[in-house]
Amino acid sequence: MQAPLIKVAEKAGFCFGVKRAVRMAYDAASSCSGPVYTLGPLIHNPQVVERLKGMGIDVCDNYEELPPGATVIIRSHGVPLEVLEFLRSRGVRIIDATCPFVKKAQDIVATLTNSEYHVVIVGDGNHPEVKALLSYGKGRASIFPHVPDGVLKLGVVSQTTQLLEKFIECIKWLIGHREFQEVRIYNTVCQSTAERQKECKRLAQEADLVIVVGGRNSAGAKKLWVVASEEVEAYHIEVAEELNPSWFLGKRVIGITAGASTPEWIISEVVEEVKRITGGKVDGRG
Amino acid sequence: MQAPLIKVAEKAGFCFGVKRAVRMAYDAASSCSGPVYTLGPLIHNPQVVERLKGMGIDVCDNYEELPPGATVIIRSHGVPLEVLEFLRSRGVRIIDATCPFVKKAQDIVATLTNSEYHVVIVGDGNHPEVKALLSYGKGRASIFPHVPDGVLKLGVVSQTTQLLEKFIECIKWLIGHREFQEVRIYNTVCQSTAERQKECKRLAQEADLVIVVGGRNSAGAKKLWVVASEEVEAYHIEVAEELNPSWFLGKRVIGITAGASTPEWIISEVVEEVKRITGGKVDGRG
Repeated sequence: MQAPLIKVAEKAGFCFGVKRAVRMAYDAASSCSGPVYTLGPLIHNPQVVERLKGMGIDVCDNYEELPPGATVIIRSHGVPLEVLEFLRSRGVRIIDATCPFVKKAQDIVATLTNSEYHVVIVGDGNHPEVKALLSYGKGRASIFPHVPDGVLKLGVVSQTTQLLEKFIECIKWLIGHREFQEVRIYNTVCQSTAERQKECKRLAQEADLVIVVGGRNSAGAKKLWVVASEEVEAYHIEVAEELNPSWFLGKRVIGITAGASTPEWIISEVVEEVKRITGGKVDGRG
Repeated sequence: MQAPLIKVAEKAGFCFGVKRAVRMAYDAASSCSGPVYTLGPLIHNPQVVERLKGMGIDVCDNYEELPPGATVIIRSHGVPLEVLEFLRSRGVRIIDATCPFVKKAQDIVATLTNSEYHVVIVGDGNHPEVKALLSYGKGRASIFPHVPDGVLKLGVVSQTTQLLEKFIECIKWLIGHREFQEVRIYNTVCQSTAERQKECKRLAQEADLVIVVGGRNSAGAKKLWVVASEEVEAYHIEVAEELNPSWFLGKRVIGITAGASTPEWIISEVVEEVKRITGGKVDGRG
């Protein structure tokens, strides 16, 4: 049997916002005096969170418990306005690693709701990014598909890691189901998310099997798995140890991609393990 | 055989903008010295145009031929910016009877294109309202579905007499087929047009036959006929003389509606003639 070809997505791994947040955390570890925390895990990747712990940066899950004088790193998803205000009032030092693209979406929600639009956020209401976005609406924002009755001026934004196709479907639904005078739609799907998803789709069309590497809780990784699964057999793993040799039987082209919160070293471990299991060769990067 | 019921739409006939334009023309006929013209027929109704002629208001089809010192009435559809500018430069007195709802759509096109949006107009490129709307975009507007490549900030407006459903379908198409950063949609479908169409649909669902009364060139009347035809047998006539007795055979409920440019007296003539042909009774108005 011929050894399979292993194709690693060019856009696999850390995005701009995650790279920036991780760099800010590393900087904080080396420069801050006093205790440093991230508010929730910095990124949806337990291995990175472990590394930070080793550098003295702990995860704090409840912002109300942060001691005055502590330093807290706001992760790339951002936090609700009221949390920021609470932390400021407590004299906690804030390092804001909110992704600039998420910040832009927050600004749009704030600007539109200040101008009498009601803003609908297309995203997962349980995701921290969406909870934060919602807070910037100060009561004049809601999660898709909910729109209060009587709203005639509507704004629409997306969770930055949303599937572009889903965002578009939701807009179409709103346009078709709501009376309106005016609708302002901002495509806040992060370009790198959209490109990563597009590349994943192409990869899945070329491959017999796709491995998506990413934290179990990573929305982005889950969505990559959805995109890949629509085309071909696909698995979502967190680390190389989860690879099951039986998946690779008879496969000739194996695609590997990773979410925006998956560090390079974990992707490399997966690629090496796939090479070891299959005897395959890496095409492209790697 | 039982005499049929004749249901006349409550919203049949002159809309706000047409009433206003006709009133302005009548006022001009009695108050202006010197020749008075309308630029094109004042409304899409030859009978009204005839009446105005009797009052000394002629139709001028070519604005370049208007003599200085003349008075010209701009009809409810509005005119392209360059025509207004030409008339002003020639010292022609202008009575602007552009419908305020059309004016609002013109203002939206101007404001959006001044703010670097490209505006797509959903409407009939040959209709005078749409030609005028387009002119306010000063080169940064186009007729649906055309959008220049590379446009990422998009505005969308509608011809005021557009079918709301069609406007919505066109928006959905744009959203699904164009990459964008931002889309600003203004529902410029005139409320009275939308209500008239909704009522026409209800009427067509209740009736065995619908008669739409309106000028042959009236876009609004044609669209009412489309709406009615989707539900039931329907005819578009201009005057009572066109009614064909064979249409009414075996019909128990007859609906009558009329476009926004159809004067009350023509609707009354049609209702009377339907009563005469069928022996039916009028339900509701009339």
